[in-house]
Amino acid sequence: MKLAMIGLGKMGGNMATRLIQKGISVVGFDRSAEVVKTLEEKAKMIGATSVADALTKLDGQKIVWLMVPAGNPTAEQINELIPMLNKGDIIIDGGNSNYKDSQRIGKFLEEKGIGFMDCGTSGGVWGLANGYCLMVGAKEEVAATMKPILQALAHEDRGWAHVGPVGSGHFTKMIHNGIEYGMMESFAEGLELLKGKSEFKLDLAQITELWKHGSVVRSWLLDLTADALKEDQTLDEVAPYVADSGEGRWTVVESIEQGIPTPVLTLALQVRFRSQEKQGYGYRLLSVMRNAFGGHVVKKTK
Amino acid sequence: MKLAMIGLGKMGGNMATRLIQKGISVVGFDRSAEVVKTLEEKAKMIGATSVADALTKLDGQKIVWLMVPAGNPTAEQINELIPMLNKGDIIIDGGNSNYKDSQRIGKFLEEKGIGFMDCGTSGGVWGLANGYCLMVGAKEEVAATMKPILQALAHEDRGWAHVGPVGSGHFTKMIHNGIEYGMMESFAEGLELLKGKSEFKLDLAQITELWKHGSVVRSWLLDLTADALKEDQTLDEVAPYVADSGEGRWTVVESIEQGIPTPVLTLALQVRFRSQEKQGYGYRLLSVMRNAFGGHVVKKTK
Amino acid sequence: MKLAMIGLGKMGGNMATRLIQKGISVVGFDRSAEVVKTLEEKAKMIGATSVADALTKLDGQKIVWLMVPAGNPTAEQINELIPMLNKGDIIIDGGNSNYKDSQRIGKFLEEKGIGFMDCGTSGGVWGLANGYCLMVGAKEEVAATMKPILQALAHEDRGWAHVGPVGSGHFTKMIHNGIEYGMMESFAEGLELLKGKSEFKLDLAQITELWKHGSVVRSWLLDLTADALKEDQTLDEVAPYVADSGEGRWTVVESIEQGIPTPVLTLALQVRFRSQEKQGYGYRLLSVMRNAFGGHVVKKTK
Amino acid sequence: MKLAMIGLGKMGGNMATRLIQKGISVVGFDRSAEVVKTLEEKAKMIGATSVADALTKLDGQKIVWLMVPAGNPTAEQINELIPMLNKGDIIIDGGNSNYKDSQRIGKFLEEKGIGFMDCGTSGGVWGLANGYCLMVGAKEEVAATMKPILQALAHEDRGWAHVGPVGSGHFTKMIHNGIEYGMMESFAEGLELLKGKSEFKLDLAQITELWKHGSVVRSWLLDLTADALKEDQTLDEVAPYVADSGEGRWTVVESIEQGIPTPVLTLALQVRFRSQEKQGYGYRLLSVMRNAFGGHVVKKTK
Repeated sequence: MKLAMIGLGKMGGNMATRLIQKGISVVGFDRSAEVVKTLEEKAKMIGATSVADALTKLDGQKIVWLMVPAGNPTAEQINELIPMLNKGDIIIDGGNSNYKDSQRIGKFLEEKGIGFMDCGTSGGVWGLANGYCLMVGAKEEVAATMKPILQALAHEDRGWAHVGPVGSGHFTKMIHNGIEYGMMESFAEGLELLKGKSEFKLDLAQITELWKHGSVVRSWLLDLTADALKEDQTLDEVAPYVADSGEGRWTVVESIEQGIPTPVLTLALQVRFRSQEKQGYGYRLLSVMRNAFGGHVVKKTK
Repeated sequence: MKLAMIGLGKMGGNMATRLIQKGISVVGFDRSAEVVKTLEEKAKMIGATSVADALTKLDGQKIVWLMVPAGNPTAEQINELIPMLNKGDIIIDGGNSNYKDSQRIGKFLEEKGIGFMDCGTSGGVWGLANGYCLMVGAKEEVAATMKPILQALAHEDRGWAHVGPVGSGHFTKMIHNGIEYGMMESFAEGLELLKGKSEFKLDLAQITELWKHGSVVRSWLLDLTADALKEDQTLDEVAPYVADSGEGRWTVVESIEQGIPTPVLTLALQVRFRSQEKQGYGYRLLSVMRNAFGGHVVKKTK
Repeated sequence: MKLAMIGLGKMGGNMATRLIQKGISVVGFDRSAEVVKTLEEKAKMIGATSVADALTKLDGQKIVWLMVPAGNPTAEQINELIPMLNKGDIIIDGGNSNYKDSQRIGKFLEEKGIGFMDCGTSGGVWGLANGYCLMVGAKEEVAATMKPILQALAHEDRGWAHVGPVGSGHFTKMIHNGIEYGMMESFAEGLELLKGKSEFKLDLAQITELWKHGSVVRSWLLDLTADALKEDQTLDEVAPYVADSGEGRWTVVESIEQGIPTPVLTLALQVRFRSQEKQGYGYRLLSVMRNAFGGHVVKKTK
Repeated sequence: MKLAMIGLGKMGGNMATRLIQKGISVVGFDRSAEVVKTLEEKAKMIGATSVADALTKLDGQKIVWLMVPAGNPTAEQINELIPMLNKGDIIIDGGNSNYKDSQRIGKFLEEKGIGFMDCGTSGGVWGLANGYCLMVGAKEEVAATMKPILQALAHEDRGWAHVGPVGSGHFTKMIHNGIEYGMMESFAEGLELLKGKSEFKLDLAQITELWKHGSVVRSWLLDLTADALKEDQTLDEVAPYVADSGEGRWTVVESIEQGIPTPVLTLALQVRFRSQEKQGYGYRLLSVMRNAFGGHVVKKTK
């Protein structure tokens, strides 16, 4: 089996490599010729010099897997692809797209007779070695065609499932990430309290390692956290800044659209916003208000 | 009528002054002789050189109003007072004490025949001119004795009420402050969003002034905020740091004890904690976790 | 001065009445002929039998004020109006539209030479007697034309302001309502804690009345709450169900788009979702999980 | 090695059984003679008819492990034990006590020459088969004495650690449970959103099973959830009611005492409060306020 992989970044490059290791031929293209060359050498990937070139290197039913940034880059890549594809060919969006975009694109491609699969991909940098967890939204026949490729990528043959129609793969991945935010924040808050209790001089590396064995909170995130804390638990060199990506935000928007309360997923997101904040205008306002009614001293910036 | 006022800080000094203006004699003591002197001169207060001295300047039934910091200072002051008082005398705690302390102290004094009133006092620095809002917890006869004093302090004769038994005054004030935290944070969040929408170049002084007239959010806190923003809406010189005092914390503990969810009052408090935070250990942990599973770049402190 | 008012519901009807009382001629139309007739009789409104009929009853520059439900009804009404209007005529959307819709509509109308003003309207059912608080987004010349009308509607001449370009009126109103949600929830939580402290047997009508006089939380919402509690503080006949409208939701979406944390405004919204919830699927899941790891008893629905 | 186990409920009974299976002699007492008898028969436990009887069946240095409810029952049990113990004997509190109680009790016993160990015990009903995760607070020599017992109880020899001085075991367990609340709520919220998206007809059993394989959210709680959903994902028979125990509440109190924001752990707790709520007084108030300012219809209870 053979497919084209467009976008060979951290995720795409690893996925191409894993597919090849599992016996799937991969024609790969990335805007960086350097990246293409490296994968040709290290992973026996068939390199391409352009998207068009990649497609010429496929035979029969063309399968094109996109691992490009969500939003406009994905939409533009799909627009570029359409004239090069025939009825029955398949595009897979394996990136972190908004499920509403995937629904729209799926419908648009369906009208042109092109199959579409949205594939939420979890597993991070560990996916190459361990296999990925793949949440697939597609029509029955598209998913059936893709089965060998999904099995090759998946964690132990079981890390994939066809969860529903087009859009549902990215939807499920979105919620997965929302949960991930909540779990991460749960650990972060708990560990900060452990550290804050200075009288006990707790060793956070010891405790997170301990919890891996038989506790209710054992989890892969805990495994990773324990490993990180073993190396350094002061975290003095780590800036107190946490990025966020689309799925966390979209999960909260979804909860608003559904009218379902999700305080924990929402606050886990807002904590990240807080870490990104420069100005603290709200804080300043509160300080001024306290002064205005109670005469409380306003701390000055200088 | 005559009473001793112990503690002549921002609140106590103003209250002594207002009482005198309303025809109540006040014997005042403060650890700062300077403060006592100023009030003697400016407010015709009868100065005292010690608590004992203050008591000797009272006649008959002694009424001692405490405006000292909550917790140990209040407890110690009461312990110091007891041997100087007789059955039927009255102590008023007008500070921001925890209501459980007030309940305990009230019971302790009752056994000694000394009356006790806990008085939650709202109104801030504006109380001198406008009168205070006084939430009174006491036995019926104690509250009756105190009526002329409460009326003198209160906003337009109506800013006081005997809300229940000993402890209930400080309890009511605690909840009042919890609500205050929530209202302040509501304004701070909304105004930060207004400011954040830079394309509209909104004038926050104009909008807060506007809202004072006929809007649903009109309130005293809005009046003060509008005044402050008129002077400066950049707030560049105000540090993004918000102090908190006991009542906000106790309100959340109360909600936990009652098992009643108070997400807004709780988060309004936690936002202040966040502003006080130096380390951001939780943020650092999240950043490290993201790196551990997804290979996301960790921002460094340097 | 003369204008057409389309939509004579709770808000539109009162606004038409107030305008007429202040000397502005109002031609009014509503889908309910009954409503039109009532306002003809009670308020001396000039009734119309259709939108087209209303427009024929205007002279010169036509001013059409819409008070119809946000979203599709407003958009459809504007589409119906366009062919009946000339360059220089003005449409005002005084409803609770999303500011992005207003921006889009404003641009669309501008291309046709029709002026547009988005007017966020606060004041509720009290606006008829007290005047409204009006947040206006419009071009300078449109706002200038509308000034006499805005002054007639506004609370004491000061309850209106031209806050910025088209869209900014509804944006400001959206944030206003977000703050309103936070303030309401602050009171609801605090009062629930007061009530929950049964040992003190607190009288919530007394306490809310008290707080109106000199406290930091005094506000119009408190005034209304105190009045309501005076009539009945058991609230036994009130269902524990709180509706929400678009602005609260949009405020949270705005905070996500700006990346600014608004925990209090968000939770105030989610509390309402919670009250609307039927199923409690999340609760059930938690109960099942507790059973799964700890053997804790699952309460059955029976 | 030999010890007495007092309290043979769900946790104590399983722990006694596991110890015996691992070659430790256990003298067990429970208020229910029935329970004692069953364990005598099934687990070869040495039954006792009273605490005093249990102690007579120990030799030399007496080790008494308590698995009784936290708070007064534990304190009373310890008071009952003291006269029966000698210097150098050891009491272990393996229950879910508040760490401050443990610190106080540890100090009190130390003055009497009796060793004390507080042992936070995680693992639930699965601990018998899998071994427990034990968080131990004790003096060095007490922990050393207890090592063989801890190893017998622990998950694969690694599920125990001496984390710090007396109190730190229960402190660490308290935080563990706080994190557990946050993780559980994260899953509950995410799964409720999956279910709420009815157009996708998602199979929650399939998705939770999928996530077990290679996803970022894989965890023991997910394993248990997937198993439960396989049996029934409607949860129609499960009441929407979630109990909470002390540790979740104490974690929030700790965050307030430390002044560290823990929005996620706090909201996870408050969601449980919400599920327990009968009255919804806060909701009713909000509904009344909306009516008061906006004339919005109040839903009646009927």
